[in-house]
Amino acid sequence: MSDALDAPEAPDAPDAARLDAADELRGRRAAFELDDDTVYLDGNSLGALPRTVAPRLADVVRREWGRLLIRSWEESGWWAAPERVGDRIGRLVGAAPGQVVVGDSTSVNVFKAVVAAVRLAGDGRDEILVDAATFPTDGYIAASAARLTGCRIRAVPAPDLAAAAGPRTVAALVNHVDYRTGRLHDLPGTTAALHEAGALAVWDLCHSAGALPVGLDGHGVDLAVGCTYKYLNGGPGSPAFLYVRRDHQDRFDSPLPGWNSHADPFSMDPAYRPADGAARGRTGTPEILSLLALDAALDVWDGVDLAAVRAKSLALTDFFLRRVAALVPPGRVESVTPAAHAERGSQVSLRCPSGAEDVMAALVRRGVVGDFRRPDVLRFGFAPLYTSFADAERAARTLAEVL
Amino acid sequence: MSDALDAPEAPDAPDAARLDAADELRGRRAAFELDDDTVYLDGNSLGALPRTVAPRLADVVRREWGRLLIRSWEESGWWAAPERVGDRIGRLVGAAPGQVVVGDSTSVNVFKAVVAAVRLAGDGRDEILVDAATFPTDGYIAASAARLTGCRIRAVPAPDLAAAAGPRTVAALVNHVDYRTGRLHDLPGTTAALHEAGALAVWDLCHSAGALPVGLDGHGVDLAVGCTYKYLNGGPGSPAFLYVRRDHQDRFDSPLPGWNSHADPFSMDPAYRPADGAARGRTGTPEILSLLALDAALDVWDGVDLAAVRAKSLALTDFFLRRVAALVPPGRVESVTPAAHAERGSQVSLRCPSGAEDVMAALVRRGVVGDFRRPDVLRFGFAPLYTSFADAERAARTLAEVL
Repeated sequence: MSDALDAPEAPDAPDAARLDAADELRGRRAAFELDDDTVYLDGNSLGALPRTVAPRLADVVRREWGRLLIRSWEESGWWAAPERVGDRIGRLVGAAPGQVVVGDSTSVNVFKAVVAAVRLAGDGRDEILVDAATFPTDGYIAASAARLTGCRIRAVPAPDLAAAAGPRTVAALVNHVDYRTGRLHDLPGTTAALHEAGALAVWDLCHSAGALPVGLDGHGVDLAVGCTYKYLNGGPGSPAFLYVRRDHQDRFDSPLPGWNSHADPFSMDPAYRPADGAARGRTGTPEILSLLALDAALDVWDGVDLAAVRAKSLALTDFFLRRVAALVPPGRVESVTPAAHAERGSQVSLRCPSGAEDVMAALVRRGVVGDFRRPDVLRFGFAPLYTSFADAERAARTLAEVL
Repeated sequence: MSDALDAPEAPDAPDAARLDAADELRGRRAAFELDDDTVYLDGNSLGALPRTVAPRLADVVRREWGRLLIRSWEESGWWAAPERVGDRIGRLVGAAPGQVVVGDSTSVNVFKAVVAAVRLAGDGRDEILVDAATFPTDGYIAASAARLTGCRIRAVPAPDLAAAAGPRTVAALVNHVDYRTGRLHDLPGTTAALHEAGALAVWDLCHSAGALPVGLDGHGVDLAVGCTYKYLNGGPGSPAFLYVRRDHQDRFDSPLPGWNSHADPFSMDPAYRPADGAARGRTGTPEILSLLALDAALDVWDGVDLAAVRAKSLALTDFFLRRVAALVPPGRVESVTPAAHAERGSQVSLRCPSGAEDVMAALVRRGVVGDFRRPDVLRFGFAPLYTSFADAERAARTLAEVL
């Protein structure tokens, strides 16, 4: 993999203060509860707390649950929240309203998406391709879906999926951004190639939703899932989302047809009749406290342009790579995140062959919070809404000190 | 069905004030945020708010998420919460520690339980019995599980399940208490009969957990699920639970093997290797805010004896039935809840042939909150931790006024 740390730093390269001063998103940081003594670069694992969440959640608990009680399912809009919040996320991933629903975990939504893909694909197709470097849960769940539907799984490196799809291929399940390396995969090209082969594209957006424009509708993605607790800042374990492209919705046949996905749930009909639209992707009763915390958290996105987020994300990761190259003694770390912008998500992963786990522990003690992924990777996530260039500078300096 | 409203009221029957004064659980009401102007008899749908929840959740949001951030997965015990909270629920349903895990919705857990039951049952068994009057989601999900595993579904009235099980039967999925009528089914007898036939017993405890002693271990139940937002007061859509009897755990083969159920989740192992114990029933990342609200809510159960809860529940429903019989003009409503204690859960359902929906709306306007179930049922839930005999008296009087 090319190493972005090879390039020397230009003597007139702008410093963190200049970059922060020119950052059009810098005002957003005030929307988060952040401790100024800490550089938090783990927003790709658990996003920071938006200030809107605590007061909204207190109101949900004390007034909506405590006082209105059962009436809140209608009066406080709880019942429709999965679709309403889904549409808010839809805007951030390029989906027109009515195609995204929020609820359940990413794993559960991967299961719905993969089984539904098998049923959409129809007879004669029995091979499910999975990104070989996938976040593990996708692979485990896809294997379970394959076992239950009589399909087989084939693991293929994401860049090779376009060429691997054939007449037996149901779908490919691909991570938009590799959780370990931060590599951004080619969503438009892979999706088009899958369609060319008559297969469906199922994307896992956990590490891209809220970090960069996704363009689900624009690129013709069939099904997608994603979590909301990373760049979307929904809180620990906040519910995941499921996208079903509008022209697949009528044939979307969920393996988890819980009563919340019924066309008329309160008819208590013994016969299942699926709802139209995004609600067909629901299962059981949504975890309302977590869901409405996410809803409140999404307020920080109001008026934010994803193109600006992407531009800042690339500027931050460029800057961090440049400062690491300038400050860290050569050979101590090597970037496994691609240098090319088109292949980079919103994190930088540095391979640190000796003592990576201890290095991260030392960084955390010095107030620079990233995370460690076995066996030897230091991960630093850059959340453009609240990470500053000064944060990136301090992280690079601290890393140099520790090493 | 026998009608408990036929019996005349004895002239010396105790009044509400006397019964409340003698109620050993009366002090628990103070643990809930309740509006004294309202009689809330819908705790069988959404339990009232325990006072412990709002402060605990505020701390989870502001300190555990906002300040500790990613460290809370370990330092605040988030990672182990599904098993820890599961054990707290285990005590309330008669399960020794290590067999109950909290997370996902009831529907998702029904799916895990039914598919796992098919795999536990082994070859030659392909019939899944479902309680014919089941809450709809159980039936929908069981049908999906059957479709994916090559089984068929047979709907049988719960009292007939014991006789219906045969050599082809995988399992029966039964609601412990019928959500509509409030009828309590015979868990010990049905479980024993299923075992006699070589089949498994899968119980849905949504309407019994927290309302009466269940005795999962004692009666040899194989698998069970239940929700936590009714009598357990966990909040809207709070996560459900899954019980897997200890001697089935090693062979429990989940159809939703998400990374949280892996033996070593952070190894990021591409090969799935299931965790031992209750954690094997986990799927993806738990919705921590909803889960920890439930954890706080369970504090109201500390030191509570389920036998006392059951005694009060029966006394409340007896009293309500007696007062309805005394106050409501004959023939206007008929109880569909069994008169026999052994067949009664913790709710009273009254069939109201004319205008039931309007009657319930009028009750709610007068501050008596129950709910309406189509086509003609008025449901009144009695939550022994906070419902008083005075509540039951006012509900009966108001019903008489409305009718």
